Amino acid sequence: MLQLKNLSEPSLLVDLQKVRGNIARMAEKCHKHKLIFQPHFKTHQSIQIGCLFKEAGVNAITVSSLAMAEYFAADNYSHIHLAMPPIASQAARLQQLARKTNLSVNISCTAHLQALKNTDGISVFIDLDPNYGRTGIDIANHNLIAALVDEVEQSTHDMAGFYVHNGTTYQQPGATKQLHQNALKAIVLLREKLSYNGPVYFGDTPGCSTAQSFEGISHLTAGNFVFYDLMQAQFGSCSEEDIAVCMACPIVEKHHEKQQIVIHGGAVHFSKEQLISPSQTAHFGQLVHLHNEGWSTLQPNCHLISLSQEHGIMQLSQSVFNSCQVGDFVGVLPVHSCLTAHSMGKYVSFDGESIRTMNL
Amino acid sequence: MLQLKNLSEPSLLVDLQKVRGNIARMAEKCHKHKLIFQPHFKTHQSIQIGCLFKEAGVNAITVSSLAMAEYFAADNYSHIHLAMPPIASQAARLQQLARKTNLSVNISCTAHLQALKNTDGISVFIDLDPNYGRTGIDIANHNLIAALVDEVEQSTHDMAGFYVHNGTTYQQPGATKQLHQNALKAIVLLREKLSYNGPVYFGDTPGCSTAQSFEGISHLTAGNFVFYDLMQAQFGSCSEEDIAVCMACPIVEKHHEKQQIVIHGGAVHFSKEQLISPSQTAHFGQLVHLHNEGWSTLQPNCHLISLSQEHGIMQLSQSVFNSCQVGDFVGVLPVHSCLTAHSMGKYVSFDGESIRTMNL
Repeated sequence: MLQLKNLSEPSLLVDLQKVRGNIARMAEKCHKHKLIFQPHFKTHQSIQIGCLFKEAGVNAITVSSLAMAEYFAADNYSHIHLAMPPIASQAARLQQLARKTNLSVNISCTAHLQALKNTDGISVFIDLDPNYGRTGIDIANHNLIAALVDEVEQSTHDMAGFYVHNGTTYQQPGATKQLHQNALKAIVLLREKLSYNGPVYFGDTPGCSTAQSFEGISHLTAGNFVFYDLMQAQFGSCSEEDIAVCMACPIVEKHHEKQQIVIHGGAVHFSKEQLISPSQTAHFGQLVHLHNEGWSTLQPNCHLISLSQEHGIMQLSQSVFNSCQVGDFVGVLPVHSCLTAHSMGKYVSFDGESIRTMNL
Repeated sequence: MLQLKNLSEPSLLVDLQKVRGNIARMAEKCHKHKLIFQPHFKTHQSIQIGCLFKEAGVNAITVSSLAMAEYFAADNYSHIHLAMPPIASQAARLQQLARKTNLSVNISCTAHLQALKNTDGISVFIDLDPNYGRTGIDIANHNLIAALVDEVEQSTHDMAGFYVHNGTTYQQPGATKQLHQNALKAIVLLREKLSYNGPVYFGDTPGCSTAQSFEGISHLTAGNFVFYDLMQAQFGSCSEEDIAVCMACPIVEKHHEKQQIVIHGGAVHFSKEQLISPSQTAHFGQLVHLHNEGWSTLQPNCHLISLSQEHGIMQLSQSVFNSCQVGDFVGVLPVHSCLTAHSMGKYVSFDGESIRTMNL
């Protein structure tokens, strides 16, 4: 069992019960809506956390880099979708990977298809942009999409489906429901125009967590929901209780005149992802009290307001400030769990187990 | 030798000639001003890069975490200064480390000294704050400093010196010279008041890179100068040519209507450290052209303007945009090399060598 008093450095605690709960809820949603659950593993980046998905019946996954695909392929997933377009210099690595697992990749232009020309057995998904503005063909540009479908069908590669990341829900957090419906409508329209009945992968955490309609979608590929974080709680994707990771950081100084503590926990632990709270405070995390089995509710007016490389400054309420001592570990829920998990590279569970990722 | 065309994923390129130049320049400055060079290794976090410091005569180093101290102790440095206060649960690890190397730690209050009570052979530096507001006793509070000195002298631990991180130069980049002088004056005054002639560690990169006076200081402990970055160049700490690390990222899409490219290079590669350029553009990096021996000068009006976890969007000038093809690797100089190096966890040199850090 975890003994807080034995922690000797900043540590990313993971509550595996919450992780199991988050996975089970999304798996149940997929079951209810007849979606295939092919979660994105970019958030946790860990074979050990991946095993909790396997327990929930997951055997096909989504990843965001070739290195991540290679890492998880070693744990024998039946299908790995690499949601990133290939480049020519990756051909040998992709080919090797395709011998281990059913491999698919995103493409959005002829150049991506050409990058696969010396490979075989790699199927492709066409990346579509539902007005997010990052990657993919404009989902409303049916002619351009149809032209690329034709190109794929004339190539040696299987046209396996469409991939839609509805990142618009991150751009307008108050409008998740509407933005989700907009994306679904665009997908349904595309299906009609192209007379297409095959797979459509879809997966932003805000939309997938809250929506009750998934018309037009065949596979759910969200990722962040495994841990959630303060940003998702603020977006309404989850409740505060669903957040499954928490930084544990020692207090290194108390500043009475400013009612602040300095923690050993900086940009290399949290990342510099910032959140503007409803009270207009810009912050990098919020304090919880730690105990050996978990953590408390969020403490009001207790935010991580400043980060340098290894240090963080927390502005506290009077009562929390009074209860803190130099040398104690405080908990801080992260703004963006994907980046915190990547920065930390490993987790500690409340069983006291060290959980590794591909990064450490 | 590095062959750009063989790169198959986002990679952090390091120009070891520039690294050697940056180290040599700071070593020469130390020699000229009769300072002991005890560089901070938090920027590169690599035993292999550390060897370039050894070649320049460095054998005593500064680090920012216990894990980092343990990592470098394995490479036999004669003295490791851990610029972070100890906590009680670290006693066993600290004790083991103190058997391998001369170990010193920062303290700024009685609680830190008490955390060392079950250890021996660990000397202490008192952390002083030159009006930066992060950690340390206010450097002007001579009575409080003297009281802690007394406490240390009555303990079983050696009072080895004072540690001053003049982070004020990061808060007011235009005023480096004045802020450096202010810190020196405060140190000289403290020496007089306490009749103190021992070591004073000092080391912000902006001040140490530009100043020609180091009165009152005995050891120079700067760290970032090994690589520098766009922030330091903007501060005037270095020229653009001194920046020794560069992200190489493949172009995954071109967006003609917006004159933008999307790269595989996101928050997990660059970190989310932002810089406001003189033209008021907020950005995460700036484009350079790559070749097999190095990279070009910074390309004007070519900035990394947006980051998600794995993707970055770059706004380009017309001519650079026209010259870019999907699948090409572009170079991007980072805003904050310490965080980029930490996020990446490894480097590739122009000799084609893979250089590891403690994080991968």
